[in-house]
Amino acid sequence: MTSATLNIGVVGLGRLGQRHAENLAHRVPNAKLVAVCSPVEKELDWARATLGAQHCYADYAALLAHPGLDAVFLVTPTALHAQQIIQALQAGKHVFCEKPLSLDLEDCLKVEAEARRHPHLKVMIGFVRRFDASYRDAAAKIREGLIGKPYLIRSQTMDQNDPGGFFVRFAATSGGIFLDCSVHDIDLVRWLLGNPQPKRVYAIGTNVIHQGLREFDDVDNGLATLEFTDGSMASFMASRTMAHGHETLTEVFGAHGRLTIGAGARLHRVEISDNKGIRHECTPDFYSRFADAFLLEAQEFVDATLGKGELSLSLGDATEATRIGLAMTQAMRERRPVDFG
Amino acid sequence: MTSATLNIGVVGLGRLGQRHAENLAHRVPNAKLVAVCSPVEKELDWARATLGAQHCYADYAALLAHPGLDAVFLVTPTALHAQQIIQALQAGKHVFCEKPLSLDLEDCLKVEAEARRHPHLKVMIGFVRRFDASYRDAAAKIREGLIGKPYLIRSQTMDQNDPGGFFVRFAATSGGIFLDCSVHDIDLVRWLLGNPQPKRVYAIGTNVIHQGLREFDDVDNGLATLEFTDGSMASFMASRTMAHGHETLTEVFGAHGRLTIGAGARLHRVEISDNKGIRHECTPDFYSRFADAFLLEAQEFVDATLGKGELSLSLGDATEATRIGLAMTQAMRERRPVDFG
Amino acid sequence: MTSATLNIGVVGLGRLGQRHAENLAHRVPNAKLVAVCSPVEKELDWARATLGAQHCYADYAALLAHPGLDAVFLVTPTALHAQQIIQALQAGKHVFCEKPLSLDLEDCLKVEAEARRHPHLKVMIGFVRRFDASYRDAAAKIREGLIGKPYLIRSQTMDQNDPGGFFVRFAATSGGIFLDCSVHDIDLVRWLLGNPQPKRVYAIGTNVIHQGLREFDDVDNGLATLEFTDGSMASFMASRTMAHGHETLTEVFGAHGRLTIGAGARLHRVEISDNKGIRHECTPDFYSRFADAFLLEAQEFVDATLGKGELSLSLGDATEATRIGLAMTQAMRERRPVDFG
Amino acid sequence: MTSATLNIGVVGLGRLGQRHAENLAHRVPNAKLVAVCSPVEKELDWARATLGAQHCYADYAALLAHPGLDAVFLVTPTALHAQQIIQALQAGKHVFCEKPLSLDLEDCLKVEAEARRHPHLKVMIGFVRRFDASYRDAAAKIREGLIGKPYLIRSQTMDQNDPGGFFVRFAATSGGIFLDCSVHDIDLVRWLLGNPQPKRVYAIGTNVIHQGLREFDDVDNGLATLEFTDGSMASFMASRTMAHGHETLTEVFGAHGRLTIGAGARLHRVEISDNKGIRHECTPDFYSRFADAFLLEAQEFVDATLGKGELSLSLGDATEATRIGLAMTQAMRERRPVDFG
Repeated sequence: MTSATLNIGVVGLGRLGQRHAENLAHRVPNAKLVAVCSPVEKELDWARATLGAQHCYADYAALLAHPGLDAVFLVTPTALHAQQIIQALQAGKHVFCEKPLSLDLEDCLKVEAEARRHPHLKVMIGFVRRFDASYRDAAAKIREGLIGKPYLIRSQTMDQNDPGGFFVRFAATSGGIFLDCSVHDIDLVRWLLGNPQPKRVYAIGTNVIHQGLREFDDVDNGLATLEFTDGSMASFMASRTMAHGHETLTEVFGAHGRLTIGAGARLHRVEISDNKGIRHECTPDFYSRFADAFLLEAQEFVDATLGKGELSLSLGDATEATRIGLAMTQAMRERRPVDFG
Repeated sequence: MTSATLNIGVVGLGRLGQRHAENLAHRVPNAKLVAVCSPVEKELDWARATLGAQHCYADYAALLAHPGLDAVFLVTPTALHAQQIIQALQAGKHVFCEKPLSLDLEDCLKVEAEARRHPHLKVMIGFVRRFDASYRDAAAKIREGLIGKPYLIRSQTMDQNDPGGFFVRFAATSGGIFLDCSVHDIDLVRWLLGNPQPKRVYAIGTNVIHQGLREFDDVDNGLATLEFTDGSMASFMASRTMAHGHETLTEVFGAHGRLTIGAGARLHRVEISDNKGIRHECTPDFYSRFADAFLLEAQEFVDATLGKGELSLSLGDATEATRIGLAMTQAMRERRPVDFG
Repeated sequence: MTSATLNIGVVGLGRLGQRHAENLAHRVPNAKLVAVCSPVEKELDWARATLGAQHCYADYAALLAHPGLDAVFLVTPTALHAQQIIQALQAGKHVFCEKPLSLDLEDCLKVEAEARRHPHLKVMIGFVRRFDASYRDAAAKIREGLIGKPYLIRSQTMDQNDPGGFFVRFAATSGGIFLDCSVHDIDLVRWLLGNPQPKRVYAIGTNVIHQGLREFDDVDNGLATLEFTDGSMASFMASRTMAHGHETLTEVFGAHGRLTIGAGARLHRVEISDNKGIRHECTPDFYSRFADAFLLEAQEFVDATLGKGELSLSLGDATEATRIGLAMTQAMRERRPVDFG
Repeated sequence: MTSATLNIGVVGLGRLGQRHAENLAHRVPNAKLVAVCSPVEKELDWARATLGAQHCYADYAALLAHPGLDAVFLVTPTALHAQQIIQALQAGKHVFCEKPLSLDLEDCLKVEAEARRHPHLKVMIGFVRRFDASYRDAAAKIREGLIGKPYLIRSQTMDQNDPGGFFVRFAATSGGIFLDCSVHDIDLVRWLLGNPQPKRVYAIGTNVIHQGLREFDDVDNGLATLEFTDGSMASFMASRTMAHGHETLTEVFGAHGRLTIGAGARLHRVEISDNKGIRHECTPDFYSRFADAFLLEAQEFVDATLGKGELSLSLGDATEATRIGLAMTQAMRERRPVDFG
């Protein structure tokens, strides 16, 4: 069954890169982790010790040249995505790349163009929520007509406050809260509404805790509203300052009902009753919320690449999410609604 | 509209007596609080100051002789109930009396016999949960067949721990945890199952915090199971030692579904999300849980007495609750199942 | 105790007027319903039959002339509020008036001016949510610092869809969804954030079911975002098209936590487990949600008027809610952010 | 890394056997599914088609003789467990066996004796709930003292009704509802209470839907109470007749608080709001509830067998669960409390 195995190299071994690498090494049937790549020696050490990785590269071009490599998983800084995807395609490799595709619309389009030149290669951007069992269940119920045609989605991504302000140090390159966090919600909204055309977006924000974001024209809490040409609407909230954990919540309103995904952000099925009342603990971060979805996402990529099934999202979807996220950011910075052409 | 007003005297002005008195004074249409009675001077002072009570009696017989008195509300120690009800009936007064009717089955039957001699007088024992909007809603849904015929009820009454152990001092006369607390659940079970005949009961208990209960052969946590002759069953739990508040929870199982009443014991519609998770606060005591029901209960009594509607529960119901509660207590103390004759 | 009773006339006996009248007749200590006023004969018949009302007026001026009248409750069309309040004040009566104060900012200011000429008379606009136990609990927790300084509130008012489209017929005079529904949320936001100055508002909307609203430039679903000069923000949603009931939900975000009020819109404490899953039923309309609050609201008005306690909200609060609601409506209609001067 | 792989044969390929086989084939690092065994040819066909199984045995002894086999997973009828475990041990194989160990106490003890003769071989009975993240979290919180010493556990296992009555056909050999279902709760209770000595058990039951169980002296709904010698208690409920799904719920009461595990039986993080209210769907069966736990369970077995970590539960635990389950069944059948020696 050799032909049915995909030889994969993981590029970037930060926290999320490590999770992808572990999944590919142990939990994704037909995937084989054959090499890793990171400029950080310590991360390569981790791969050797934890995964028994035998082929460790500091250089991306060297990884691409690894004998027998079929595909790469790019878990690298966003600024590198476009160029790395293009290089991989030109080297004949399938590509999985973490979201967002790019902060630059031109770069998104360049990637799309390159991909069109390699129709036999798969490229997938990791909008992981599409692989979450709850979001999938909601999408299926919408398709079946349970709530009628959806006309409004409210979606919020709220991170637990990191007192160390890790993300402030990355604010210069993150693209801002809407491109870093809300881009997931933007993709969800497009997916669940059936890909309507965006018409106009407006956004505001404030800095509650992380004043250091101001110099990057970024905020730690943002709100946005988006209109589509078909009359449907979306409302977004993104926050870096939650006390209780990571909460991803989406409400989909249809004429016959509403679906709510993620309310309560429950970590486990445990409730604690004590002199403070009755409570449950919450998912501390996005990975604890979406661990299973990361696995299914990798599985879909591997299966599609091996000829079993199709990818459920396209590069065009990723470009569109960037396009809307950029307009949202512009609206907030210029304090005015931004129209889509 | 004088004829449509019921002149009432409240007897017993402890915490619950005060609540009844306030309800009758202000919030029950067609009720008129005309007198109060308590052997405790301080309680009468409260009635004068808070309710503007003008007729305050230390002596029960004197209250019964109050000119124009139509009815009494007995919120007195259980040991006095039977005799006080009988006296009131003999004086020609309608009677509302707090639960339980009595800890002595003979006394229950004597009250029933006396009541039969005064068919024009209303007598009602305060099984307040029957007047709670949620329990009423559940009862209606059962009648409508929503869950099919109910075959099993699980009902628990759990009080917030009182570190002062107030109830320990009353353990000698309370009748024990099953007659003091579970008697409500017993009445609920009979009501919601359609008054089946009890067949056999078994009970166990333990003392977790209030070791002082041991000398009264009482426990601070008890469990009981009850079989009925028609094959239906009930499971009971009573506790004095909850940290989170007063929780009254009942689950009714039918062949087509289940109704759960009271899960979560929510105090308000407020949820708190903080670094401990997401929580809600709980009802601290039975009154905060059943305040509205006490009002509706008083309203039904007043209305029925004035000829508008019937009482929804009978003295026989109260006797039966005592009968089962006594057997449950006996089962625990004698460590064996107790059969009903 | 005659001096401690407030003689009240209720003006307007539509659905909500009837509820106010019943409360004042039976459930508000020290209130006395002495007269009612409605141009609709059938409504007066209802008052005679149900409340035993003896003084029924078709004419507002006649009601104001009723001997011994101390105060009026105005539950009339919004367009009449300002003039009726001014008339009542000039007649020396205390005034409770349903929200909103007026759809015209000039009229709001005229009412304020008139009220200043009668400092001994109380005027209260019925922002009923301030009297809801859950909102009060949240407000108290905020004051105590439980969540730190609030910086963002999300508040939504969602009505169950009325297939008959009752409100469409009133669209011409309702002021639109933001002034009719969101005005409550606006008042809540100001109250809970500590009355910050509004800076800029933006709003969008759509018509999902009730296309008849278009001719009034109104929508059946609206979204708005509001910035305050101190950096705090608010997000609003209003809907006429919910399938599950009336849901009023408010989330208050502070640096140390979040308070959520109203999630789930539970009608009772009953949960139903059947082959569809586990569910609870929802409050069908605003009155089933806020019945107790209407009572406390009336109680505060009566108490304050009788010299016991102060009103907790001012005419200025009502004017401000109208001012923001008007700007929100303008923003939606003109498709641009509206700045506050 | 050959030495670090465990070669496993799965015996029994019914529904649960298939799940175990899939887990071992794809998702348990260091496990290698090398052979399968079933007397049912169709099941072996499934293994060939789905897992690419190359070594399929109809005969258990033949499987045990498979070259290089290290361990077996027994997912066979309970009546076979003891003998099959003993055979495997005598053949020098590690053993994982589904619960319950046996319905016969003597057989349990024989297995224990045989296991003692092979101290280098691991034997594990699959009390899967001990590997569930929520139960583990609860156990950790108890160890940390969050709720004080636990004194009472209420645990219920409720299966969705199977109109086909699949289990009725197996009633003759299932051991009855307490040994088939409650045995899990019994194990949980012992684990979470710290293995106290059982003192006395009482149980009752009824047949609501599946009257065919009567001939086997079995019921479709059962209740039991268990006392331990240290004063702690447990309450059990088992049901075959739920409409809403499989619900496993456990409440652990301590002097300082309560932990509730599994309330709501949520399938996903999706809530549906429609004209029936707000609902969530439930786990349809035990596997959808415990899928992750089955994986962790297999992982612990494989790891322990390969020398990484210890098994967290012993054969003695399995024997004790059978002992209590048998007494519970006896109590129900003989309608009397049963004492432990």
